[in-house]
Amino acid sequence: MVKFGVIGYGYWGPNVVRNLDHLEGSQVVAVCDKSPTSRKRIQKAHPHIKVVTDSTDLLSSTEIDAIAVVTPVWTHYELTKAALEQGKHVFVEKPFTSDSNQAEELINLAAKKNLKIMVDHTFLFTGAVKKIGQLLEEGTLGKVYYYDSTRVNLGLFQHDVNVIWDLAPHDLSIIDHLIKETPEAVSATGQTHLNGHEDVAFITVYFPNKIIAHINVNWLSPVKVRTTLIGGEKKMLVWNDLEADEKIKIYDKGVHITSREGLYNLLVNYRSGDMWAPQVEQVEALRQELAYFVDCLSHDQTPFNDGAAGLRVVKLLEAANASVKKRGALVYL
Amino acid sequence: MVKFGVIGYGYWGPNVVRNLDHLEGSQVVAVCDKSPTSRKRIQKAHPHIKVVTDSTDLLSSTEIDAIAVVTPVWTHYELTKAALEQGKHVFVEKPFTSDSNQAEELINLAAKKNLKIMVDHTFLFTGAVKKIGQLLEEGTLGKVYYYDSTRVNLGLFQHDVNVIWDLAPHDLSIIDHLIKETPEAVSATGQTHLNGHEDVAFITVYFPNKIIAHINVNWLSPVKVRTTLIGGEKKMLVWNDLEADEKIKIYDKGVHITSREGLYNLLVNYRSGDMWAPQVEQVEALRQELAYFVDCLSHDQTPFNDGAAGLRVVKLLEAANASVKKRGALVYL
Amino acid sequence: MVKFGVIGYGYWGPNVVRNLDHLEGSQVVAVCDKSPTSRKRIQKAHPHIKVVTDSTDLLSSTEIDAIAVVTPVWTHYELTKAALEQGKHVFVEKPFTSDSNQAEELINLAAKKNLKIMVDHTFLFTGAVKKIGQLLEEGTLGKVYYYDSTRVNLGLFQHDVNVIWDLAPHDLSIIDHLIKETPEAVSATGQTHLNGHEDVAFITVYFPNKIIAHINVNWLSPVKVRTTLIGGEKKMLVWNDLEADEKIKIYDKGVHITSREGLYNLLVNYRSGDMWAPQVEQVEALRQELAYFVDCLSHDQTPFNDGAAGLRVVKLLEAANASVKKRGALVYL
Amino acid sequence: MVKFGVIGYGYWGPNVVRNLDHLEGSQVVAVCDKSPTSRKRIQKAHPHIKVVTDSTDLLSSTEIDAIAVVTPVWTHYELTKAALEQGKHVFVEKPFTSDSNQAEELINLAAKKNLKIMVDHTFLFTGAVKKIGQLLEEGTLGKVYYYDSTRVNLGLFQHDVNVIWDLAPHDLSIIDHLIKETPEAVSATGQTHLNGHEDVAFITVYFPNKIIAHINVNWLSPVKVRTTLIGGEKKMLVWNDLEADEKIKIYDKGVHITSREGLYNLLVNYRSGDMWAPQVEQVEALRQELAYFVDCLSHDQTPFNDGAAGLRVVKLLEAANASVKKRGALVYL
Repeated sequence: MVKFGVIGYGYWGPNVVRNLDHLEGSQVVAVCDKSPTSRKRIQKAHPHIKVVTDSTDLLSSTEIDAIAVVTPVWTHYELTKAALEQGKHVFVEKPFTSDSNQAEELINLAAKKNLKIMVDHTFLFTGAVKKIGQLLEEGTLGKVYYYDSTRVNLGLFQHDVNVIWDLAPHDLSIIDHLIKETPEAVSATGQTHLNGHEDVAFITVYFPNKIIAHINVNWLSPVKVRTTLIGGEKKMLVWNDLEADEKIKIYDKGVHITSREGLYNLLVNYRSGDMWAPQVEQVEALRQELAYFVDCLSHDQTPFNDGAAGLRVVKLLEAANASVKKRGALVYL
Repeated sequence: MVKFGVIGYGYWGPNVVRNLDHLEGSQVVAVCDKSPTSRKRIQKAHPHIKVVTDSTDLLSSTEIDAIAVVTPVWTHYELTKAALEQGKHVFVEKPFTSDSNQAEELINLAAKKNLKIMVDHTFLFTGAVKKIGQLLEEGTLGKVYYYDSTRVNLGLFQHDVNVIWDLAPHDLSIIDHLIKETPEAVSATGQTHLNGHEDVAFITVYFPNKIIAHINVNWLSPVKVRTTLIGGEKKMLVWNDLEADEKIKIYDKGVHITSREGLYNLLVNYRSGDMWAPQVEQVEALRQELAYFVDCLSHDQTPFNDGAAGLRVVKLLEAANASVKKRGALVYL
Repeated sequence: MVKFGVIGYGYWGPNVVRNLDHLEGSQVVAVCDKSPTSRKRIQKAHPHIKVVTDSTDLLSSTEIDAIAVVTPVWTHYELTKAALEQGKHVFVEKPFTSDSNQAEELINLAAKKNLKIMVDHTFLFTGAVKKIGQLLEEGTLGKVYYYDSTRVNLGLFQHDVNVIWDLAPHDLSIIDHLIKETPEAVSATGQTHLNGHEDVAFITVYFPNKIIAHINVNWLSPVKVRTTLIGGEKKMLVWNDLEADEKIKIYDKGVHITSREGLYNLLVNYRSGDMWAPQVEQVEALRQELAYFVDCLSHDQTPFNDGAAGLRVVKLLEAANASVKKRGALVYL
Repeated sequence: MVKFGVIGYGYWGPNVVRNLDHLEGSQVVAVCDKSPTSRKRIQKAHPHIKVVTDSTDLLSSTEIDAIAVVTPVWTHYELTKAALEQGKHVFVEKPFTSDSNQAEELINLAAKKNLKIMVDHTFLFTGAVKKIGQLLEEGTLGKVYYYDSTRVNLGLFQHDVNVIWDLAPHDLSIIDHLIKETPEAVSATGQTHLNGHEDVAFITVYFPNKIIAHINVNWLSPVKVRTTLIGGEKKMLVWNDLEADEKIKIYDKGVHITSREGLYNLLVNYRSGDMWAPQVEQVEALRQELAYFVDCLSHDQTPFNDGAAGLRVVKLLEAANASVKKRGALVYL
């Protein structure tokens, strides 16, 4: 039985607490939040869980094996470091840290202490991403050409980060997970209209082998869009995360070029066949992720969404941020 | 009665011929195409129109007042120049020319000869773009924040140009028409997978006053998308050109930021009201455009989609092309 | 403070308990369910609420003012009757009773005892139905021509009732509420394929003044549809309850016939204008309904969805059932 | 080479003329229309085709082998009869005739004269219906449970027939073609609001083996819908004819009931698997149909959409009309 302390009971914290408390192998001993309102909400929902105001109480508790850090990004480094220093494993919200140096330091500290870090890349545990991963691994799509995601909606404006740090971690963690290549460079453009942070941004990630990824994030869209196109040599895919059913559609469409002599003798062959929407597992992704974390702790295994994965995403975010400030200038990784 | 010679009877030429021949104020005297198959198609569809193989016959004909150049872009300069030299007005396909020097030379030549050039920016004559233009002029959307277009589908691969030169002229001519600011710089990313030309590209155009435009063009998409989001201070708009009805939806949604003292005291107010889909004129855009050209010739007026408009689009295409080769590096205009 | 006892904690009961317990003016004293699993779920979710196995304990409790009957339809009559006899007000699931005689008896009993009955016609409290009601009252649609609802999905098969009694009460209660005419007759068709109860059915309700309502209910549809068309003399409306936003779209479309002399001289004029999607209140309908019930009890007012409304719906269901058995034969009300 | 005379050049006639004139094995000798405007349109589009005002000229021409009757339904009987009497084969618009006696008489006359009649049930030649037919024949859907079509839009109001005779022939001819059972009876409801003919109607057709078909036709709908659900024992299908691609979606969904002892022991098992959208042939249905007719004439074969098929549809229309007048009363066939 892994005993958890949870820091932060804002928007996402209640989901973490509920799931950790319901899993077979885990239990929430105490939750900490500075806001009296949040503390009341915990007590009402989970009368048996201890509620504290100061995170130090959790971090130093000998009863607790692992800490879940569910707070704003600028607090992740300090809280995670303190937890590791107290010998606790850490489950931490994405993005892992505010900069890559912090992430590296935490990874090293965990290694030294023989502790696990899991970064909450929840989307990797959705039925949709698992199915796409399976299709890529089985070679159904063939060689990947591009990954093109649109993730736009109205708000919520953040005070401390721009739309890249707010919305792109989802796509970057998915890309990091699905594309089995090391990204080379990032170019990003965007604009700030309202509060000094970019609210519209377009990120391109260059990979080897001509794979290109593009992410369109926007806090100022009148409609919510969560659509990703993936083009492959053999098949192409549309993932619309807002569809209740048929989230993933696989198209037997493609282009095949036969070169003959000379530029004007290229023969372009189009293929257009059936479409297929595989059934996608409908489970709560966070529940699966936390069960996996508990399992990793119980069996002393490193999760695939560990600190190193978190660091890779932070490096991409840093590169995108650096590029957007220079209006698209290429930033190598 | 304006008498036209039309050069080129491939994909788009038949539409130009049909419309010019049906308009009250114009008439097609002769059509030229090098392909015997195309010549047969003309004869079958328009038995009364003269068919020629060599464009020189059209260009030198004293019977003809204006030439429609409906051929691949790399021939535009030469054919338009020859037509102007022979004293003919010119209607020419988009993009105007393969480079901006050619466009400038043609503009000067036309000015010297007192002849008109119209570049076929057909979309400006659609009910949708006219309605959007009206909404912007009336101030319904308020100050424009961004223009974000997705124009993707499977194929058709071009032999001589990349996806930017193939698909982006539509969006660039619309942006040039709708946004009443002079673009400052372009950043573009993309990738070539099949025949040596970019088949996926993402173009950002920076304007003054924090207006940003983004264009996503792709020849390798399994689904056809023609969607543009326009975010304004007062209202936001979605234009889905594939909808039979309700092409344009206007959302009474927005964000309003009240600054108080200090960064963390920004008050973000969201507004979410009704949606409204105005009826959009359903007419053949090309017909309207050609009628307008005939009208401009008859009244010696310069069309708004003249050589200068064509040149502005070519400059944006050149900048995008230069940037995409340097992986997003900013290219000033 | 109205004190409630709730009977039944299956699919819908938890929502009733949660809302009654959270409202300012009400409180749940005890919940009854025969299933040990359900009783455990109550205790876990609401540790402070008393849990009982036998409904008699609730019905006879002097602490309780009102009973919520959230059980299968065949139990409604007996439980409601017992509650009324014990001097309790009753909130009862739809459909009110299994037959109209029962409903009439309960209405009379409540009147005699000066007690209130509310039948849970939840849809009447949704933002969508409230908005449609407002549009009809304001005359925006003009005279109503037809109401056409499709309510189909896969399952859930009921053991004791057919698809008419399962799904049509929603539409019938909405029609009863929106159309200010007394229905004249019902014709229904349908078929039973699997378990001896109709799983597909089509119901037509005739009203005076040429108003016609049609309801398509189906337990064997591969896709879920919840769409209603309402045609009026001035405007027409589509209500798609599965849309997250834009549930209601109002079309400025219509047909106007100018009669001249003779049959072949009718002039048909079509009108096609803008479409408009008003913002629809997004609140939990059940919460609003229960708050309204508590308010009615506190101010001794009769709810509009009272026993009489429940009876009208039961009569329509009876008529539809009688008609479907005779393959569409008209049943007068 | 089959030589055709075509009577009627209104809405559909031009398509029949164009296709008959382009087919390898046929040729249009003359077209007849009473309207001077229509005659001008023929001359402009087909300068080589003879244009006549009086159908007698066509019917008596010895040059002509077959007549296409593309006129309003009330003229079909007389024109077809005259054509048959003159020894011509006949291609006639749907619905075949205004009543079933006429249809029977024409069938007998054609048989006596050894001539072919084809009724223009165009939909049977679409890629969609052909694919559905194939799926049913191959047993992919299993035993059919129901066929449920919605065919609604705004207008066009007809002067001489109601919405049943205008829109339902499409569905009835498809049902007649796809369902390999003889329909037993019809129940129809509807209402007339504007010009004395039903503008909204709901038709139920009962077949043996518990197959039920339902057709919802409406001239007063603000939106155009062309959607058919087909439920089968093994799989279920949605055909949305307004989708450009993915017209047909097949769902691996179903319900399976295991009976145990007693009513309350039925075990309902739901199955929910992948969805699959087969590619559907994209050809002009009318062209295929006319090519088939020419082929039937050349090889002296009876088309499946012959007079007998036309008669079956007319009988269903008559039954629906009789039922709608009696508000749903069952009419046996």
